[in-house]
Amino acid sequence: MSDDSLIRLRDALRAFAEERDWAQFHNPKNLAMALTGEVGELVEHFQWLSAEQSAALDPATRREVALEMADVLLYLVRMADTLGIDLAEVAGAKLAINAERYPVERARGTSKKYDRL
Amino acid sequence: MSDDSLIRLRDALRAFAEERDWAQFHNPKNLAMALTGEVGELVEHFQWLSAEQSAALDPATRREVALEMADVLLYLVRMADTLGIDLAEVAGAKLAINAERYPVERARGTSKKYDRL
Amino acid sequence: MSDDSLIRLRDALRAFAEERDWAQFHNPKNLAMALTGEVGELVEHFQWLSAEQSAALDPATRREVALEMADVLLYLVRMADTLGIDLAEVAGAKLAINAERYPVERARGTSKKYDRL
Amino acid sequence: MSDDSLIRLRDALRAFAEERDWAQFHNPKNLAMALTGEVGELVEHFQWLSAEQSAALDPATRREVALEMADVLLYLVRMADTLGIDLAEVAGAKLAINAERYPVERARGTSKKYDRL
Repeated sequence: MSDDSLIRLRDALRAFAEERDWAQFHNPKNLAMALTGEVGELVEHFQWLSAEQSAALDPATRREVALEMADVLLYLVRMADTLGIDLAEVAGAKLAINAERYPVERARGTSKKYDRL
Repeated sequence: MSDDSLIRLRDALRAFAEERDWAQFHNPKNLAMALTGEVGELVEHFQWLSAEQSAALDPATRREVALEMADVLLYLVRMADTLGIDLAEVAGAKLAINAERYPVERARGTSKKYDRL
Repeated sequence: MSDDSLIRLRDALRAFAEERDWAQFHNPKNLAMALTGEVGELVEHFQWLSAEQSAALDPATRREVALEMADVLLYLVRMADTLGIDLAEVAGAKLAINAERYPVERARGTSKKYDRL
Repeated sequence: MSDDSLIRLRDALRAFAEERDWAQFHNPKNLAMALTGEVGELVEHFQWLSAEQSAALDPATRREVALEMADVLLYLVRMADTLGIDLAEVAGAKLAINAERYPVERARGTSKKYDRL
């Protein structure tokens, strides 16, 4: 069993789908939609909260939010697997791209652009 | 430096935000919206494809899709960090919940319910 | 009472929010998130369906889908109202833009670009 | 030509798709994804804004937002048409359901539940 959490999840989800004969439903298009649905459920927890309230959830809501975030991650990992994409590798690559796109000296404290990572 | 990719990404994003003074924008509500935006960009790649086409992307599109998936993961990891949520832990917990909810013998090959992981 | 359905919905939603003292929650940011949540619920109905199945819903599912689409429209109309945007006007303007962007003779039957309206 | 804006848009979109031979792409599943993509683009305008800022957009941003909202409406109207759903009718019906679900005297000023229309 891998030490890396993303690999571990990928393998567990692969087994999960195979045992249930769900691979037939798991094409990237369908999984992208499933991801959308889970993000929608996640967002619903925050829609009427102020920014401050969103950072101070009560423990019960925080657990619900955590489980929705888990769903998002699970579908993302599963989708990447069906596409043969190494999520950890590509996330590292994207971070390097973002570091070049938003150099520290120019990006400090502004919110001019959409990306903010 | 951690061996685990999710921890490594969390730490890198934390440093990234601090260097750019972006923590002020990074509350869970805003990050949930940023996640939505990235999922929207990801979905756009698949909207006019058939299920079969979605599983057979040309290399250039596949790389673009991979980078969009990276953005989704980066915002998800950053959002979890601002909430103090351990994504790997909660994803494992959710998988266990799903395994109980969809026992192999009853779930085989049906698509009756929304969740499919 | 206006003869136009979008105006009628706008006015009804305005009264609805005022009676319940909900205008305090109805800023464009929050309403954009609420819209996301409703689109997520709508998408969930289609995620495991084939394109063909999605066009041949049973009556009960079709009614559920219709009510989710209603929610999307209601939040969109309400959001436009808080921004002082005339949805019918701007939709007409966007259609004219799209007609220029995708001239009939060049756009016929291709799926090269994202927009497809 | 109908006096109602939703009917007018429906008819214009129907002609638009027919002229370009795009009906082949316009099944409800694909259109639900296209809707997701447009909502993602809309949300991106608001993700780093405070609630107050979101209600006080500068004219250029407000026009961009208006055009994104137009895209959402256009796909929603087109999707409803492919499903044979009368959007105005079902939105009215949903408003009546919501009025029963959130009686004025009990709903005043609380943000207990997700729906807020």
